Amino acid sequence: MNEKMISDAMQMVSYAITQALPDAAVQRALEDADLGCGKLVLVAAGKAAWQMASAACQVLGDRIHSGVVVTKYDHAQGELPRLEIYEAGHPVPDENSFAATRCAMEAVSGLTEQDCVLFLLSGGGSALFESPLVSGGELADITQQLLACGADIVEMNTIRKRVSAVKGGRFAQLCAPAKVFSIVLSDILGDPLDMIASGPACADSSTCEQALAVVEKYGLIFSEHTMELLKQETPKELTNVENRITGSVRQLCSAASDMAEQLGYMPLVLTSTLNCNAADAGSFLAAIAREYSGSGQKMAFFAGGETTVRLTGKGKGGRNQEIALSAARGISGLENVLIFSVGSDGTDGPTDAAGGWCSGQTAADLWEKGYNIADVLAQNDAYHALEACDGLIMTGPTGTNVNDLSAILIG
Amino acid sequence: MNEKMISDAMQMVSYAITQALPDAAVQRALEDADLGCGKLVLVAAGKAAWQMASAACQVLGDRIHSGVVVTKYDHAQGELPRLEIYEAGHPVPDENSFAATRCAMEAVSGLTEQDCVLFLLSGGGSALFESPLVSGGELADITQQLLACGADIVEMNTIRKRVSAVKGGRFAQLCAPAKVFSIVLSDILGDPLDMIASGPACADSSTCEQALAVVEKYGLIFSEHTMELLKQETPKELTNVENRITGSVRQLCSAASDMAEQLGYMPLVLTSTLNCNAADAGSFLAAIAREYSGSGQKMAFFAGGETTVRLTGKGKGGRNQEIALSAARGISGLENVLIFSVGSDGTDGPTDAAGGWCSGQTAADLWEKGYNIADVLAQNDAYHALEACDGLIMTGPTGTNVNDLSAILIG
Repeated sequence: MNEKMISDAMQMVSYAITQALPDAAVQRALEDADLGCGKLVLVAAGKAAWQMASAACQVLGDRIHSGVVVTKYDHAQGELPRLEIYEAGHPVPDENSFAATRCAMEAVSGLTEQDCVLFLLSGGGSALFESPLVSGGELADITQQLLACGADIVEMNTIRKRVSAVKGGRFAQLCAPAKVFSIVLSDILGDPLDMIASGPACADSSTCEQALAVVEKYGLIFSEHTMELLKQETPKELTNVENRITGSVRQLCSAASDMAEQLGYMPLVLTSTLNCNAADAGSFLAAIAREYSGSGQKMAFFAGGETTVRLTGKGKGGRNQEIALSAARGISGLENVLIFSVGSDGTDGPTDAAGGWCSGQTAADLWEKGYNIADVLAQNDAYHALEACDGLIMTGPTGTNVNDLSAILIG
Repeated sequence: MNEKMISDAMQMVSYAITQALPDAAVQRALEDADLGCGKLVLVAAGKAAWQMASAACQVLGDRIHSGVVVTKYDHAQGELPRLEIYEAGHPVPDENSFAATRCAMEAVSGLTEQDCVLFLLSGGGSALFESPLVSGGELADITQQLLACGADIVEMNTIRKRVSAVKGGRFAQLCAPAKVFSIVLSDILGDPLDMIASGPACADSSTCEQALAVVEKYGLIFSEHTMELLKQETPKELTNVENRITGSVRQLCSAASDMAEQLGYMPLVLTSTLNCNAADAGSFLAAIAREYSGSGQKMAFFAGGETTVRLTGKGKGGRNQEIALSAARGISGLENVLIFSVGSDGTDGPTDAAGGWCSGQTAADLWEKGYNIADVLAQNDAYHALEACDGLIMTGPTGTNVNDLSAILIG
């Protein structure tokens, strides 16, 4: 076991997570932002809204004229100068969501071409930032019908964007002629801008025809008013918006890669959208490690994403711990190889560990302690096995949630 | 769909397989071989023994003094000058295996230091090349007990090497003082020389102590004679042997990579020991493709190995077809991406296809034709879906079997 490699790995983990924190992400995005020369209105929505707004306040100070922050209950951490702070319902929007959003709509009305709206969006924004064009009761009924009929997420959004005053690019339209500088903290693989909070500042590619086709396909029964709304087009082009996606899993991978390079490893990001089964991902990573373990070069491969776990047992673990444990089988006996996997939120599955790591020694260690890796994986009990061989990675809750980071280090 | 990329892929497939054929592999290995200046005796064992011997005859002609070829029934394709050809039992050795092996043992006895044994080994050699130190009946009983008790492959070989006159390096010992130049066509991932045909020309790392521990661990009941044999050590060092591993999946990957480079792609071999679940491997490959599809560079990633299939349905398909079909989901809509996977033997699973390919268009094509990829995978019915969208790769039987090749092309 190579102590230096473990310490290298931990440095990569901690640097990557720090760089993906909302504060760092917002600060980085603001570095070369063009925020106009007029009034600057801040609107922040999502689970990380308070933190993003707070970071913006630190960078911009008095430049911010006014604004609105709407986040989940218990997620605001105090007052922020010149900003109105709301807490509201998530994942189901409530009256506070609607009130906060109306307040934001007022704050961005009557702006001029010189003015700018700094729009800070994070996960959960879909429920927290909403102003329905139908009654709350009717919105609930529409959602209920869409869930019951088995419509997919794209079909659902095609309908939902049309019964909202802010989704599907409509919020950016309300801001015009002011410019919208939008910083998006992405928690969805591949960063699909129109999916994150249903894209309030993103031109919508879905059409009225498609919306009506969904109604017909599933035999949905909506009011006349709703049917009229479905016939109103969402903006297809937004010339006043600049979007910056930041603090996503892509950022997580690239920060880890930067730190690896600094530590003397030749880095390669394999993917930032990994979504296969966790144990098989571990096996694939181990197969890559076997190929390069004898190369005599210091290399680091990274894979970001969010894998899935096949539940066949009742043990304790998480997808990152399964990746590490499964990989342990595949690199057994190899020297100077370390594989780790961590969740950027610091809590992997229902455990207090962020993830786990393994080396060529791990399988033998576990065998000696009476653990059979195949059995442990079948029980989904990676936590206890990794705990027994000091293979858990503990970071505590990190304050961000941009999916997972897996890595192979060849030392 | 990019016709040029499909044609590039097919060129890579056909070049890689050609380079992994026994003929090409043997010719390449003989190019710089030191075969001494004395008598040259050829011994070939395994499913590809005849082809390997035939290739050696073409290169060496009259240099070959005499020799023995033992292959599976119906695998010899005629006489070869100065060589005795045997066909024998596989996977269970029979009297012909024993007779052929005795003949080989005689052919290599009484050689001098100037002489050389050209030993050509391929898959299946474990059954075809065997001279037991116990009776045929006792050998069958030992094998039966080892299978029944749940011993793993390493434990089995630790016992089997000791009841054989040729396994575990003993054949090379018999050849001494003559030199043994051994060309090994590997069909086992990672090319473990002591595992391929139980390593007749490979120093054995297992010990008598370990053999006796296996007997105790599983409560095996052997004759006194067998117990005596277990106490006789196998050679721990062989100074007269030179091993060349060729035509393995590593070769398959490196040939594909060479052709990719020639066609203008930047190639990278990810692994040559891939052994995870096929559908998840496809998903992982697709995740890598998504990362690089917009890079604007021509790139080719290769993964060799042998994946597994989770049987949940009764359809028609193979592991390579599952990889291609699963990948189709993950690259849906992407341009200039092609993923393919083929078995080097030309028959993937119980089908007449070598494998399959997909592009960013495949998922939409299948959807239009009424195929739901998730359902097809659950039915293990990749063949019919790929057939419907012209995604099968047909090569016919190739005459080699060095596992599988999967690839991502970014064009």
